[in-house]
Amino acid sequence: MIEVLRIGHRPARDKRITTHVCLVARAFGADGVVIDTADRGIERTVSGVNDRFGGDFKVQTGVPWSRHLREFSGTRVHLTMYGMPLEDAVLRIPKAAPLLIIVGSTKVPAQVYDMADFNVSVGNQPHSEVAALALFLDRWFQGKELRRDFGGRMKVIPTARGKRILDSGEEE
Amino acid sequence: MIEVLRIGHRPARDKRITTHVCLVARAFGADGVVIDTADRGIERTVSGVNDRFGGDFKVQTGVPWSRHLREFSGTRVHLTMYGMPLEDAVLRIPKAAPLLIIVGSTKVPAQVYDMADFNVSVGNQPHSEVAALALFLDRWFQGKELRRDFGGRMKVIPTARGKRILDSGEEE
Repeated sequence: MIEVLRIGHRPARDKRITTHVCLVARAFGADGVVIDTADRGIERTVSGVNDRFGGDFKVQTGVPWSRHLREFSGTRVHLTMYGMPLEDAVLRIPKAAPLLIIVGSTKVPAQVYDMADFNVSVGNQPHSEVAALALFLDRWFQGKELRRDFGGRMKVIPTARGKRILDSGEEE
Repeated sequence: MIEVLRIGHRPARDKRITTHVCLVARAFGADGVVIDTADRGIERTVSGVNDRFGGDFKVQTGVPWSRHLREFSGTRVHLTMYGMPLEDAVLRIPKAAPLLIIVGSTKVPAQVYDMADFNVSVGNQPHSEVAALALFLDRWFQGKELRRDFGGRMKVIPTARGKRILDSGEEE
């Protein structure tokens, strides 16, 4: 079980980045995302993607992060540009226990660094929590996540030109 | 030489996502980014990161994309959820020629699919152009991009807890 915890979400400012965080979590094999601030718009967007493209990726918003982080039973992995290298971390994080992957928006409270079991950096340059999450999950699943079948109503057929989509049914 | 071409940038709406595209391009080893719409704010943000963290990543905004795409001398790679699988593409794209990586925001004009030498998908689920760019560059450089030394004034020292930054000089 892999859950992503998004901290510091400000609906007006972060709507699109947090949406990308959610869609990357889903597409790269996480089971769900928990967001600290309530945001019905993001919940609707993600469940719309589930309806069309399959899977049962969960999204919860308005969940106080500190308590969720403390009470999580499993390994807490905080993605930050200051942490230990991704390659080392992936070797050291236990494979069997549930995983909570924490991604902040702007400044992350200092206690997150202490509450995390692993602070992990995807390179040590400033870039993007969206990219960091994608790279972490890609290394974790060793690229297999990109070939996963979500079993959805709509399926994209890879093609060299244009767009090919199989749509196998009515919207529920 | 690797350049990223960002198409359909709307400064008010896309500021943060396009900034993430730029920072990912820089951190993952591209040499520069070209954005179709003028945006001085993004230019300032990126050159501020160069000043502090090193490298000479280029950013140009307000460049008409269609002409830039047509006149580019090298291989044009368009990242899209509809394209051929990343793994196949990385094997087939010539290694020596300059690369232009095209990332759209919302709907990409149909002619981009035709003008591209390769339409490449990073998985076939909807997710994020930020993640797609990061994964493409990571596969292209086989993970070596994460260990690159940018030679900047500020350097992050990987650490298990907290933040360690070397700051080796005055701001110019």
